Amino acid sequence: SMDGPPAPASPAGLSAFVAVSQLLGLTLLVTTGAWLGRYRGGVAWHSPLQFNAHPLCMVLGMVFLQGDALLVYRVFRNEAKRSTKALHALLHGLALVIALVGIIAVFESHRTKGIPNMYSLHSWCGMAAFVLYLLQWLLGCGFFLFPGASFSLRGRYKPQHIFFGIALFVLSIASCLLGITEMLLFKISDTYSHFVPEGVLANTLGVMLVAFGLVVGYILTREEWKRPPLAEELALSMDFKTLTEGESPGG
Amino acid sequence: SMDGPPAPASPAGLSAFVAVSQLLGLTLLVTTGAWLGRYRGGVAWHSPLQFNAHPLCMVLGMVFLQGDALLVYRVFRNEAKRSTKALHALLHGLALVIALVGIIAVFESHRTKGIPNMYSLHSWCGMAAFVLYLLQWLLGCGFFLFPGASFSLRGRYKPQHIFFGIALFVLSIASCLLGITEMLLFKISDTYSHFVPEGVLANTLGVMLVAFGLVVGYILTREEWKRPPLAEELALSMDFKTLTEGESPGG
Repeated sequence: SMDGPPAPASPAGLSAFVAVSQLLGLTLLVTTGAWLGRYRGGVAWHSPLQFNAHPLCMVLGMVFLQGDALLVYRVFRNEAKRSTKALHALLHGLALVIALVGIIAVFESHRTKGIPNMYSLHSWCGMAAFVLYLLQWLLGCGFFLFPGASFSLRGRYKPQHIFFGIALFVLSIASCLLGITEMLLFKISDTYSHFVPEGVLANTLGVMLVAFGLVVGYILTREEWKRPPLAEELALSMDFKTLTEGESPGG
Repeated sequence: SMDGPPAPASPAGLSAFVAVSQLLGLTLLVTTGAWLGRYRGGVAWHSPLQFNAHPLCMVLGMVFLQGDALLVYRVFRNEAKRSTKALHALLHGLALVIALVGIIAVFESHRTKGIPNMYSLHSWCGMAAFVLYLLQWLLGCGFFLFPGASFSLRGRYKPQHIFFGIALFVLSIASCLLGITEMLLFKISDTYSHFVPEGVLANTLGVMLVAFGLVVGYILTREEWKRPPLAEELALSMDFKTLTEGESPGG
């Protein structure tokens, strides 16, 4: 729109890194689909192929959507904070629902085939990532979306929310790498060491998962790319600060 | 000593977190040793047990020593920057040498047993972590230890050095988790799903590796715990900045 002053441009480089992250993210999904479609018989719910919904849902939910949810404050840097926050919560919520479908897929598939649950390091790391991710989402909604939490409480929780958000994203990617290794050693243990195409493809998927994590992590931690507070937010937070400090002069 | 003014105390909480990190780090080594000693026949160089030197060296070098090298700027916050920097480089150098021994162990063991190299996702991630870690060490020495690099060049490289330092530490831990999963599926694939003690012990080692990474990462990224420049460094850097800006007024 031509109304109002033009929004300040994104910092140089940020747009390029975001574009690379999205290209990598889509390539992750295509590669996962190609692996499952070309070598593992495809994906279907009520069938022996139900297991294959697990890797697809986890890469989509716990990696791609979780990563994009982390990026919204960098991408939508000139939108109102309230809208960006809602999108952040929504994308994480969607990621959680898709991940839950992926978890149901593996539990149902195990039950059908009589395979025990939760014995492997992959399952321990993956389940820890999912449960802590759900907890982080609930805490985030409680502190930042609902109006109950005070300005100072939000300020103290925010660095923890950011640290654990990035840590859980990293743990999710590590769990995917463990899942890839498990699946290859279950399915092609006889030929994996001969550099068969399926092994190379799945290894490449693992490398791209690491690359996606690196690019998203780089965007998130680069100081100059952090979302600056808008003019009206700055004024508001000053008011709050004055009020808060006025309330408890000894603090 | 009673001479001179007392050094400023470490921030509250930092010492406790560092203590927990060291306790976790030592427990990692003990647990790795217990796994190899109790269930894998122990460690010996010129023997069929040579492979077992690999996990031990990698946990010691690429996780414990690498992690401790990252922590020196938080732990020795009141020492001269030059000494802390030397210790940082020295610990990373030691980690690299021990990791190299660990890599030689697996290549020699594979050659003896006729097992191909570098086909698995573990080997791809682990080798990438090692090679990039060596590169990062060389770049770090070049930029920060030798007197050639200008003040402004150092300032521009430093955030990259920090980001990739933490990223490589995380990739090293992820590679260890992949190695644990591979080793369990090679050695106890028949009983792993029955929650045998070796599987539970190795999974627990994996969880402790994640915990070590979390604690070290938390210490490194907490804003209030960053090493403040000493008074004399601040004065010096001001001098440098004035000189640099004086040299190129247009920059």
